[in-house]
Amino acid sequence: MSATRMSVLNPISYKHVDFPQGFWKQRQELNHSVTLKAEYEQLEKTGRVASLSHQWKEGDWYKPHHYWDSDIAKWIEAAAYVLGKQEDRDIEEKVDNLVDLMCSRQMEDGYFNTYFSTVGKGKRWTNVYVMHELYCAGHLIEAAVAYYEATGKEAFLSMMRRYTDHILTIFGPEEGKIHGYPGHEEIELALVKLYRVTNHRPYLELAAYFINGRGTQPHFFEREAVGRGEDPDKNPLRDILNRNYLSEGHYASYQAHKPVREQTEAVGHAVRAMYLYTAMADVAGELGDESLLQACRNLWKNVTKARMSITGGVGTLEFGERFTFDYDLPNESVYNETCASIGLIFWAHRMLQIEKDSVYADVMEQTLYNGVISGISLTGDHFFYSNHLACQPELYTHNVSRNPRLLPERQSWFEVSCCPPNLARLTASLGQYLYSTTEEDLYVHLYTANTVKNSIGGKAFELKTTTNYPWDGKVNFSFVSDEPISFTLYARIPAWCKQPRVSINKKPYTFTDKDLVKGYLPIERTWKSGDELDLDLPMGVRYIQAHPAVRHNTGRVAVARGPMMYCFEEVDNGKRLQDVVLNTHANAEVVWKDDLLGGVQVIKLKGASRSLSQWEDVLYQEVEPEWEERSLTAIPYFTWSNRALGEMIVWIRNT
Amino acid sequence: MSATRMSVLNPISYKHVDFPQGFWKQRQELNHSVTLKAEYEQLEKTGRVASLSHQWKEGDWYKPHHYWDSDIAKWIEAAAYVLGKQEDRDIEEKVDNLVDLMCSRQMEDGYFNTYFSTVGKGKRWTNVYVMHELYCAGHLIEAAVAYYEATGKEAFLSMMRRYTDHILTIFGPEEGKIHGYPGHEEIELALVKLYRVTNHRPYLELAAYFINGRGTQPHFFEREAVGRGEDPDKNPLRDILNRNYLSEGHYASYQAHKPVREQTEAVGHAVRAMYLYTAMADVAGELGDESLLQACRNLWKNVTKARMSITGGVGTLEFGERFTFDYDLPNESVYNETCASIGLIFWAHRMLQIEKDSVYADVMEQTLYNGVISGISLTGDHFFYSNHLACQPELYTHNVSRNPRLLPERQSWFEVSCCPPNLARLTASLGQYLYSTTEEDLYVHLYTANTVKNSIGGKAFELKTTTNYPWDGKVNFSFVSDEPISFTLYARIPAWCKQPRVSINKKPYTFTDKDLVKGYLPIERTWKSGDELDLDLPMGVRYIQAHPAVRHNTGRVAVARGPMMYCFEEVDNGKRLQDVVLNTHANAEVVWKDDLLGGVQVIKLKGASRSLSQWEDVLYQEVEPEWEERSLTAIPYFTWSNRALGEMIVWIRNT
Repeated sequence: MSATRMSVLNPISYKHVDFPQGFWKQRQELNHSVTLKAEYEQLEKTGRVASLSHQWKEGDWYKPHHYWDSDIAKWIEAAAYVLGKQEDRDIEEKVDNLVDLMCSRQMEDGYFNTYFSTVGKGKRWTNVYVMHELYCAGHLIEAAVAYYEATGKEAFLSMMRRYTDHILTIFGPEEGKIHGYPGHEEIELALVKLYRVTNHRPYLELAAYFINGRGTQPHFFEREAVGRGEDPDKNPLRDILNRNYLSEGHYASYQAHKPVREQTEAVGHAVRAMYLYTAMADVAGELGDESLLQACRNLWKNVTKARMSITGGVGTLEFGERFTFDYDLPNESVYNETCASIGLIFWAHRMLQIEKDSVYADVMEQTLYNGVISGISLTGDHFFYSNHLACQPELYTHNVSRNPRLLPERQSWFEVSCCPPNLARLTASLGQYLYSTTEEDLYVHLYTANTVKNSIGGKAFELKTTTNYPWDGKVNFSFVSDEPISFTLYARIPAWCKQPRVSINKKPYTFTDKDLVKGYLPIERTWKSGDELDLDLPMGVRYIQAHPAVRHNTGRVAVARGPMMYCFEEVDNGKRLQDVVLNTHANAEVVWKDDLLGGVQVIKLKGASRSLSQWEDVLYQEVEPEWEERSLTAIPYFTWSNRALGEMIVWIRNT
Repeated sequence: MSATRMSVLNPISYKHVDFPQGFWKQRQELNHSVTLKAEYEQLEKTGRVASLSHQWKEGDWYKPHHYWDSDIAKWIEAAAYVLGKQEDRDIEEKVDNLVDLMCSRQMEDGYFNTYFSTVGKGKRWTNVYVMHELYCAGHLIEAAVAYYEATGKEAFLSMMRRYTDHILTIFGPEEGKIHGYPGHEEIELALVKLYRVTNHRPYLELAAYFINGRGTQPHFFEREAVGRGEDPDKNPLRDILNRNYLSEGHYASYQAHKPVREQTEAVGHAVRAMYLYTAMADVAGELGDESLLQACRNLWKNVTKARMSITGGVGTLEFGERFTFDYDLPNESVYNETCASIGLIFWAHRMLQIEKDSVYADVMEQTLYNGVISGISLTGDHFFYSNHLACQPELYTHNVSRNPRLLPERQSWFEVSCCPPNLARLTASLGQYLYSTTEEDLYVHLYTANTVKNSIGGKAFELKTTTNYPWDGKVNFSFVSDEPISFTLYARIPAWCKQPRVSINKKPYTFTDKDLVKGYLPIERTWKSGDELDLDLPMGVRYIQAHPAVRHNTGRVAVARGPMMYCFEEVDNGKRLQDVVLNTHANAEVVWKDDLLGGVQVIKLKGASRSLSQWEDVLYQEVEPEWEERSLTAIPYFTWSNRALGEMIVWIRNT
């Protein structure tokens, strides 16, 4: 533990970033006024709030689940980010009440878990493989840190420090402690947050301990099972979830099939994977652990080069909510859990600070504007758990399990409802993903209308961004400071942008690709009040192909503009979308629709499909097809399923 | 029951048809020498034979299943067809032993069922919805009829007449009898067979009774559940299997959601559907029931115009082994149970006799040479339960249920092993599908090397077919009879054949499409010994499209030649088959490979796929593709998965 922290970027806190107008102002307001309230109602309605009293008895109208604390925690964390930016007595009161309740139920020894204080009484720390005990602790820690940072109130943070100190007496390398780690990763990244706010190094060390022990032999999940008096060979979860990973060794579903530094393929439950990889990057950065960082790079490459949908969705298979194999990215059936995409943003954000490379910001942006915000309705109160890339509505009438995670329309809540509050906390904290600083650099990762107030080299500045991004690529920055400041502004040139133009104080600033540093254009100057920087990132309509091994997308393209992926819905384009051939050589018209889907740029395109007139009462035939022209309208992917149930495709034939 | 039998064709029995050489000689010999023996060993090994003793006790090495009698029955039926054509002491002894055993275990009242005499003792006729009791009886009846017709031995037939007479006392419209029908249809078609061999009309009437009652209200499955003291609303099978059919009403999985005459869409379990529709056609023909026949026509149209794979596979979904919705015909995941395709042949054959229309013979041939015989390995001892139209091997490592019905390689047996003996009985009885007669007509439905001996208008003849069909479209018939016979030979002109040529005694016989009668060319003449008829049915390589609503096959074609569908395997063509674009304008070379896959015509084709050189470490990009030429080899679909595990596709991109 004597290693030195890597030289990493420091993200500017969301507290210093305002969204006075534009895309994120609209979404944050909806998040505040609708989503948070709707989710709190669900927390109450489903018994999650009531359960915190720890008064549950068999026969009550609710029964605590072992993951319920995490839903409460994520909601508090989201509320904290809202309160960090503005007053809201009602929300603050709700949080304080929840915190009071939890504090009053904390055990003498610091322990706090609703499930194990009620339904699972007496079984503490006997099954961290399955029971989400450390996972819930992790989310509570994150919430406590966020609430402390937002309001300065210490009660929740103190409670969670006490609980974490208790956990430190339970887990660790010392004799008499459990030499283990959670089945559902999450606490690792939370411990790093707690370390950063407290500067108490044992928290960081425990995070590293959990990560470093993962997948080592003799295997903890087996040792733990023996401790419960079970035969690990008869562990049904091992059998079922890991059956397809036998060649990888057991426990790949939990990224625990081998030590993390030996892992080069993203396997298993996608949300767990993302949270683990996020923490690995955190710990690697804090401890200067190059081999751990290299594992992150290897896994990043595998995910982003072979196992990620073009929307930033990850985790192909519904069974086990997990990764499958390289290039297995179907459209109708792909799982792409909203939480997994949110986790990908976390991971990308951590890697970005360490690697200072725009590839991470590119994926962060791609995921944010597509696979993440597709998870929530434009009304702010309905959610997708899985984010499919194509929809044939009749299919869902044969979804015999009626799994609400697999429906073609967003739902108001889920029994396992991790995604809705995860969306709320990401949206409310969005400001933190835009900028990073060092002593003499300012990095701009994401472009959107906002104003940031911060300092660099000890000197305060304000930077105002005026733009209609993501709908338009023109971005104006105006700089304000009391005194001139010499620093380098690193402006990300998105990978999707082929001909960026830059001007400073309205004078063209010429540069070539060679001037870019890992995808960022460094502009070194003495910045003074009134300085203006203009980026012009032309948003042409792009037709993107997938790797030839992505077998579902051969002969197809995805339509994109700027950071947005587009899709085609039946309500605009009629039926049989899978038969439509897009004419990529025809003119694509980009049209702003103020009254459509909350205001979107639609793309008007031309295509053709086979005429049905040749197909009356014929299923198969040799025929020279007759083609019918079709006028097509593509809408941003994230806005699909906000009007009517119907067909949808992202990948459209282009030949 | 006073209706008159429709004027139907009479199939010539398999007993009058020999295969002295060619495709079916090879397959029947393998069926006899390998398949029948291998299956008998499995019947013994799994306890199915032992269970017939009815000596089972809890703790024995086997435990009778409620469908086991049907596996025994189908094997006996297959053995009977073999014995109907040649002596085989060993097989006949095996059958006689099985029959002796069964006769000795028949109850006083005629009842015979192994499950209900052991595991399910005391529960006779309490759950014909689920328990396959009538289904097993049906298969035993079919076997008894076949064994009697093959050998003239009466013991088994007598036993099954006694059992059926018992069933007549249990089911029927009279007061005190069960007013019901089986959950798994099969006995209906068996009862018609028993009626035809005995001319005992109550058997036919019971078949009609089962069919006519199906789906009527108050619903039998609910009445039966009440009789067991159950709440039908809590019937788990109703809930699970029918959940997706709620709009259709419950019990669509069993084709019992409404009266059969009101059914216009093929729904539910595909094998049950096929057996039911077969019996409906049988009964319609026997009773001259036009409304029942019209229901068959409606269902036939739905199946063949919207719900059938190009291989003749039916039943899209693994869950419930059932039909889904129109045009839902995926390739990788399609279920297409071998038994369902066999059932489709049964149904087509019945419809053909009544309608005398080649559309039925076309589907019969298409299904036979593709979706049926794909079910068995070239070694004769491994079987597919489901017949996919594309294979990506890595997918199956994520077949977490390890369902052997869903594997990419044939298996030697299955726990539910209906398909293997079904293949054996179809193969052994293949002769019966070739010809039909009336008093003055001879219909030739299928072409293959064979000799048929029969009579027409009381006059004996022999017709010898010399051909390499299905590998070649030249078919020579030579006629032998003691005296000239005037009759019309109806020669089927396959729908796939665009330029058929016919000659009689080497002189061209010209005709146009207008001369065809429902797809058959009628050749009316006085046939005399030495007459020769030659058909030339050119087998060009065809590129077939699917209906534009078949969303998995847009932009793709299936390659066919004659009755054979072709496919592309990795072992011949390399990987990434889904990216290959076939050049349908290049020359297709048909090459006979004597040493490949038991002797097949392969098709050599040209295509191209995207070069991987542009795709190193790239998952998505805008790019003008570089193409690499690929030399392609297509093999008959039924021969896939006989060499190595690998990719396979039927539908190949053509644009």
